[in-house]
This record gives sequence, structure tokens and C-alpha cells, in this order.
Amino acid sequence: MRFSLGELAERFDCELLGDPGIEVDRVATIGNAASTSITFLANPAYRKMLLTTGAGAVILDQSSASDCPVAALVTRNPYVVYAKVASLLFPEVITERATHPSAVIATSASVADSASVGAHVVIGENCTIGENVFIGPGCVVGDDCHIGHDTRLMANATLVRRVTMGARCTIYPGAVIGSPGFGFARDKSGWVHVPQVGRVTIGDDVDIGANTTIDCGAIEDTVIENGVKLDNQIQIGHNVRIGEHTVMAATAGISGSTTIGKRCMFGGASGTVGHLTVCDDVIVNGLSMVSKDITVPGIYAGSFPAAEVNVWRRYVARFRQLDRIAKRVTNLEAMQKKK
Amino acid sequence: MRFSLGELAERFDCELLGDPGIEVDRVATIGNAASTSITFLANPAYRKMLLTTGAGAVILDQSSASDCPVAALVTRNPYVVYAKVASLLFPEVITERATHPSAVIATSASVADSASVGAHVVIGENCTIGENVFIGPGCVVGDDCHIGHDTRLMANATLVRRVTMGARCTIYPGAVIGSPGFGFARDKSGWVHVPQVGRVTIGDDVDIGANTTIDCGAIEDTVIENGVKLDNQIQIGHNVRIGEHTVMAATAGISGSTTIGKRCMFGGASGTVGHLTVCDDVIVNGLSMVSKDITVPGIYAGSFPAAEVNVWRRYVARFRQLDRIAKRVTNLEAMQKKK
Amino acid sequence: MRFSLGELAERFDCELLGDPGIEVDRVATIGNAASTSITFLANPAYRKMLLTTGAGAVILDQSSASDCPVAALVTRNPYVVYAKVASLLFPEVITERATHPSAVIATSASVADSASVGAHVVIGENCTIGENVFIGPGCVVGDDCHIGHDTRLMANATLVRRVTMGARCTIYPGAVIGSPGFGFARDKSGWVHVPQVGRVTIGDDVDIGANTTIDCGAIEDTVIENGVKLDNQIQIGHNVRIGEHTVMAATAGISGSTTIGKRCMFGGASGTVGHLTVCDDVIVNGLSMVSKDITVPGIYAGSFPAAEVNVWRRYVARFRQLDRIAKRVTNLEAMQKKK
Repeated sequence: MRFSLGELAERFDCELLGDPGIEVDRVATIGNAASTSITFLANPAYRKMLLTTGAGAVILDQSSASDCPVAALVTRNPYVVYAKVASLLFPEVITERATHPSAVIATSASVADSASVGAHVVIGENCTIGENVFIGPGCVVGDDCHIGHDTRLMANATLVRRVTMGARCTIYPGAVIGSPGFGFARDKSGWVHVPQVGRVTIGDDVDIGANTTIDCGAIEDTVIENGVKLDNQIQIGHNVRIGEHTVMAATAGISGSTTIGKRCMFGGASGTVGHLTVCDDVIVNGLSMVSKDITVPGIYAGSFPAAEVNVWRRYVARFRQLDRIAKRVTNLEAMQKKK
Repeated sequence: MRFSLGELAERFDCELLGDPGIEVDRVATIGNAASTSITFLANPAYRKMLLTTGAGAVILDQSSASDCPVAALVTRNPYVVYAKVASLLFPEVITERATHPSAVIATSASVADSASVGAHVVIGENCTIGENVFIGPGCVVGDDCHIGHDTRLMANATLVRRVTMGARCTIYPGAVIGSPGFGFARDKSGWVHVPQVGRVTIGDDVDIGANTTIDCGAIEDTVIENGVKLDNQIQIGHNVRIGEHTVMAATAGISGSTTIGKRCMFGGASGTVGHLTVCDDVIVNGLSMVSKDITVPGIYAGSFPAAEVNVWRRYVARFRQLDRIAKRVTNLEAMQKKK
Repeated sequence: MRFSLGELAERFDCELLGDPGIEVDRVATIGNAASTSITFLANPAYRKMLLTTGAGAVILDQSSASDCPVAALVTRNPYVVYAKVASLLFPEVITERATHPSAVIATSASVADSASVGAHVVIGENCTIGENVFIGPGCVVGDDCHIGHDTRLMANATLVRRVTMGARCTIYPGAVIGSPGFGFARDKSGWVHVPQVGRVTIGDDVDIGANTTIDCGAIEDTVIENGVKLDNQIQIGHNVRIGEHTVMAATAGISGSTTIGKRCMFGGASGTVGHLTVCDDVIVNGLSMVSKDITVPGIYAGSFPAAEVNVWRRYVARFRQLDRIAKRVTNLEAMQKKK
């Protein structure tokens, strides 16, 4: 694919500085670009690389435009425009539009003619597979699942059963959605399994990363709202609800029966204990554990940065003496007062 | 399915308050129940919802019975009785009792006639698959595995090789059991792989969650005893032994050669370093790391709750000054003494 | 397999103490060995077990040789020699050297005659599969992947697309390599997916554990250099580079655009934030989070060991009072000075 800067400027509503006839056919990093590449500048840390970039054009904002030694597409949100340009240059091509003969599809399932079903796929009873859905090789779609139009399941993903998913979602390989939640009642003889009879309901435009797991609800449903983006190896417990446009970085974990608001951001390896509520517009830093309701939007943290091991050991030793230190201070204060 | 309260009371040894002829056909939460639903009250926090429940019947204990505005099944352990009632109303139905023609089964494997083998399953050499075993679509059972009666492998699970599993286990999708443990010896030129020649031995009534991994032993076996319940995305290293009826929440991790006692409970994202022993009846809170033997039953913790980021940053800054603060206290004490 | 001690001593350049005609046919732990077993002593903690071992022979170093009651192979690195002996006694046998008829291989893919392709495998367009490669059942190799000679993919692993892998690698079950990285640009209406057009490049002799995920680069490549060993359930973000012979224990996570040096060791559940650089020869302890560049080789830590819960709660309470305690010390000092 190859596009002229004039066409890109018009399509994405940018101001063009430079020759509209220049053509680009690939994307590149600002420090490693050839003349037919288009790159972007969104992070001020890379601004000094702008001066020596070999790119044919740079997507940037007004504040950097005058420094740009090559053609520029000027916009208020260079990263979004870059994303759109890159999507144009590298369209996701669905190579096959067919059902592979090795796929095993239950007779009660309904698969749109425009859907693609890959090799060794299994689709269970009473499923409905929408228009232009892509189901990659090795995926298993259990009974009673419903997949909206233009949703893609990459390879080896599993929808266990009773999963309803909207349009334009992407499910990455190894993801497991709708597995029964972890529910056991303690009996004298051990643990009794509590049937997990809820469903998983997923909105439109949701991304679910590789090897991420989302359990079905115990009684009512686990719900992932529109526009949620989950990275790899995330765990979502039963009965969780995640609000619109919330994003979570890899290996985050949300314990059961927790409700997360809209537009939240969870850092890598962050998480919550169960049965709590996080309001809209909350950012939780990486490796932090939310242990009670959050009712005020803002940034929350709870992790320590690593230090050289001897320094860290002294920190921890002093931390363990804290109670004693506090009492010594109290003693000193008492003696001070006496005088 | 539909059952009368009289039948349920008798079957599960409850006292019935109300009309034995009332019938229920579904379970519901106490706050969202219709008249043919049965619900339960186990957590006192929900007691106030009892007064307005729309359920046809509530499973509860003696202390709440007099407040119940509808029929009640009275028992000492409402959650266990709920689990059993729900299992009755929603039996796990194995739809196919057959070997799918796409399954690939080694000629030396022995599969019980009553077992179900799903589409695209692979079963290796010398395996034995017991009565009523269910092996879901896409599962791979490697060479020399033995699966006890009534055990179920859901979709896309992998038993690598030399895994022995008891009766009535459930293995959730994406679980990997028997993968070679992480063993390398450092040589001048890099790392030399240490063959992992042990097995994995799993008892009866064990649950292993989605995308959980359990490595085979280095020399002797990795052992999961009867009644252990592991949630999703848990990692169990080589040579680990987990005692009877221990439960672990999602993303817990047990490092190699560690022995965990019976009836322990590990919270989400908790873990242990390797080569240690945890005695019976230990509870480890979420996100806590056990770094040495635990010899006394009890509750152990080691994680910080997240705080508003500026508050947290001040905590951390002061934490790093602790050594200096302690020395200042010592100085003050010395000057005090001099006087 | 059965080898005489004389043959082993010669093959692995050890000094033999004892009868060269003694034969061993298995490995064992030092505490649980029978007379045809060979074991090793590398950890001084097990030295006292040497005196009563039932092994036919022990691999050990000079310092323990005189205490050994049975035949000994003396070497400077007993664990490496043990690894090599065990590999000799338990060779990895590839049982089938063929393409299973259920495998689906694109016509544009090139598969070496000596490669093994298992049941229900899918190989995409333009792939090249080298000599003696083993691709286990259920694996999916997406378009444009290249696998070097003698590399093994165990069951149900997924190479998404554009993954290049060297020789003698082992990919464990459920691993997902080359899934698009987590890249989204914030727009008024939500999150816009940023196409991930980079590749994953993996060197020789790399091990990638069960259910580990490695994302492809956003623009340039994610790179795993020669000899890297990754345990289970590790997450490697887009654009990460991991240097030669670095090892990571289970559930470690490296955020995007981070560069890790050579010969580093990351403990279980450790990790880094994104966009930073860790130099060569760094050890990061378990559960520690690297939050800025590390430029000096050494050991880094940042985690707290779990304590009895009441002790821990007091620690945390005092931790939260630290700011106040520090101010009280400052006050005391000021009053001291006044006098």
C-alpha cells in the first residue's frame, strides 16, 4: 500500500507542511526511518530525534511543527492519527473467507455466510456466529455462545459456554472466556463445588489479550462493557463488571464480585480484592492492590521500587523496628515534657 | 428441572418453614430473585435484603429464620446446601458419550467405553482413560497419562506426559500439566537443561483452573493431593507437594520443591519462594510472599493496600529515610542520657 | 539405558573414585536412591545425606569427595555434569518423524522432510520449518513464521505470525508468541488500536515456558537473544529486548520497550515498568519491581516477606504513621537545640 501525504492529510484532517505528492508506504520509528516511511512524534522525550530523522514525513503537533526538517502532518493528537495511518498502510487481511473442512460445527449452530471458520475449530450447540466474524485455527466455541459481527478470535482461544460477545471485538490466542468461576462451599469433608450458572456478557469493541481468563458469573453475569481493552494474562473473576473504555495492562487481576468503573486504567500486575467497587476515572499503578472501595477519581499506588539488595534489606530491617522506634520517640517526648 | 421445597428439605436434611408444595426451578441472588427462584443467605452483610426478597424460598441458618418473609430451608451451613440445590437444578450434562471421529488416539491407549472424547483431541501412547471421563475438544493428552473415572478435561487443556490423575477431577481450559520444570545448570557457555524425569501425580476431586500450569518433577514427582482446588493462572513449580483440601486463588505461584500442608488457603497473587515448607491450616493473604518455612497454623500477610498516589509517595519517601530517622532517635536518646 | 561409571567419567571429564565397571541406569535424589541410581551433591545443605545415600554413585566436587561412602564422579560443577548424565540416561525421543494426516499445512509453506508435524497442527502461508523440527499436536504456526533446525514446539502452542526462531529452541504448551502488542491511542470516543507491525525474533537455544506470552513489536521487533530461558506464565511486552543467557522465573513480566541485558536473572513474579534499560549481570529478586534504569550489575530487591497477620498489620499501621513520627523527631531535635 502506498499513499500520498496529500491524501493522508485530507483523510485524517491534518495540516500538511510540505509536498502533497510525497508518497509513503510504511511506518517507522523516528530514529530509524527511511525516506518512504512515515513516523510520528508524540512523546517530547524523542523531540531531539526529529532533527535528524530520515523519514519522508512526520505526524506531530503544532508545537513541534517548526522544528521538523521534512514534510509534516500537523494534528492535535499525533498518536491517534499515526494509529489510523498505520491501519491504512497495514490493513488486517482475512485471507480465507470460508469454513475449513476440518472445522466441527454443531448442526444447531448458525454461522453467517460471510464468517471465516479456521482449521480444527469446534463450534457447539445453539451458537450464533455473526457477519464477517473470523474464528482462527484451534479455537473452541462452546455451547450457547453468540458472537457479534466483525469480531475476531485468533488461534487456540476458548469460549467455554454461554458467552455473548458484541461487534468488532478481538480475542487473542489462548484466552479462556466463560470458564466456571472459583466457587466452593466448605463442608466437613472438604470443598463442595458451587455451580456457576451465570454467563459472560461482552460489549462491542472489546480486546481480550493472550492467555487472559474471564470466568462466568456464579448466579448473575460477568460483564465487560463496550470498548474495554484487556492485555495478556489478566484474570477476571466471577461476577465482575468492568466499565466502558477501561484498560488493563498485562497480568492485572480482578477478584470476584468487584465492579470497576468507566475509563479506568490498571497498571501491570495490579489488582483488587473481591467484593468492592472502584468508581469511574481511576488509575491504579502497576503492582498495586486495591483493598477497599475507591470513590474518588484519581491515581492510586501501593508498590515499592526495587533497590540494591543491601539497601533494601536495611529498609526492611528498619521497617520491622518501626514499632519500637515509635515507642522510643514517645518516651523521649515524655521525658522532654517532664522537664 | 423443578423441585418442591418438601423434597429439597428432605434431601438435604433441612427444617422447612413454609409450604412443602412450593416449587422452585432456578437459583438467584437474594436481591434479584423471582417467585420460582431459591436463594440463600450466608453473608450477614446481605441480611437486610432478606426482608424484601422476591424469592420463593431462602436457604438460611437458624439465626435468620424468624426474619424470613417467604418460605425457608433452615440449615447450619446454608452455602453448602445452596451448592447442592444448585447442582440439582443445574446438573452438568455431558451431551456426547462417544469418541468424535476427528480424535486421534494412539493404538496403545486404553479408553473406557463410557468415556467421551471430543473433536480434535489427541491421546498419546500407553494412556488409560477411565469410566465416564470427559475429554473436551482440542485437549492433548500426552504419552503415559492415566485419568481416573468421572474426571473432566474441558477444552484445549494439555497433559504433557506422565500425568496420573484420580477420579472426579476437573481440568479447565488452557491448563498445562506435566510440562518439564524449569531446571538449568550454569555452564561456562550458558545454561544446560537438566532433564525433568519426574511425574505429576494428582489425587481425587482436584480442580485445576484455566491456564494454570503444573510442572513435572525434576527427579521425584510433583504431587497434588485429594480435594485440592486451584483457581486460574496458578503456577506450581517442579517437585511441589500440595496437601489435601488446600485451595489457592487465581495467579498464586508456588516455587519449586516447596511443600504446602493440608487445608491451607492462598489468596490471589500470593506465593512462596522455593525449597520451603508450609504446615497445615495456614492462610496466606493475597499478594503476600512466603519466604521461609511456616510451622505454626494461622494467617500470614505481607502486602500493602493501595493509597492515593501522593499519600503513597510520601510513605515511600519516609520509608527510605527510616535508617536516618532511627539514628536521629538514637542521638536524641544519647543526649537525653547525658543530662 | 545403562552406562558404566568408567564411561561416564571419561565422557564428562570427571575423576572417578571407585569401580569403573559399576553401572547406573537412572537418576535419583541423594536421599532416595537405589543401587543402580546415580545422584549428585551440589547444595551443601544436603551434604549430611551423603553419608547414608543408597546411590550407586554420586557426582560431587573435590570438597565432598572424601566423605562419599560410594563411588564418586568428581568434577568442579556437579550440577552441570548431573544434567549431562541425566540427558544421556533419558534422551528426548521424538516418536514420530512424519506429518500427521490431520495437519493442515499451507501450500506456500516449506517443511523439511526430517521435521515432525503432529495431529491437528496448522501451519500458515510462507512458513519455513527446519530440519528435525518437532511441532506437537494442536500447535498453530501462523503466516510468515520461520523455525530453525531442531527446535521443538510442544502441544497447543501458538506462533501468531511473523515469528522467526533459531535452532534448538523449546516452546512449551500454551505459549503464545507474536500476538499483537497492547497499543492504543486515546481518542475522544475511546481507544484506537495502533497496528503492531513488528515481528518477534528469537535466537538459538531459547526456552519459552508453558502459557508464556511474547508480543510482537509495535514498529520494530521484539527480540529474545540466544540462550535465554523463560519459565512459565511470563509476559514479555512489545519491543522488549532480552539479552543472551538471561533467565526468568515463572510469572515474571517485562513491560513494553524495555531492554534487559545479558546474563540477568529475574526471580518469580518480578518485573519492570516500561521504557527502561537493565544492564548486563543484574539479578532481580522475586516479587520485585524495577521502576528505573539499572546501570550497575548486582542484586536488586523490593519485596517484603510475609509475617503473621497481626504483626504485619502493626507494621503497616506504623508505616502509615511514619510521616508523623519523622516530624515528632524533628520537633524533639528542635527542642533539644534550644536548650
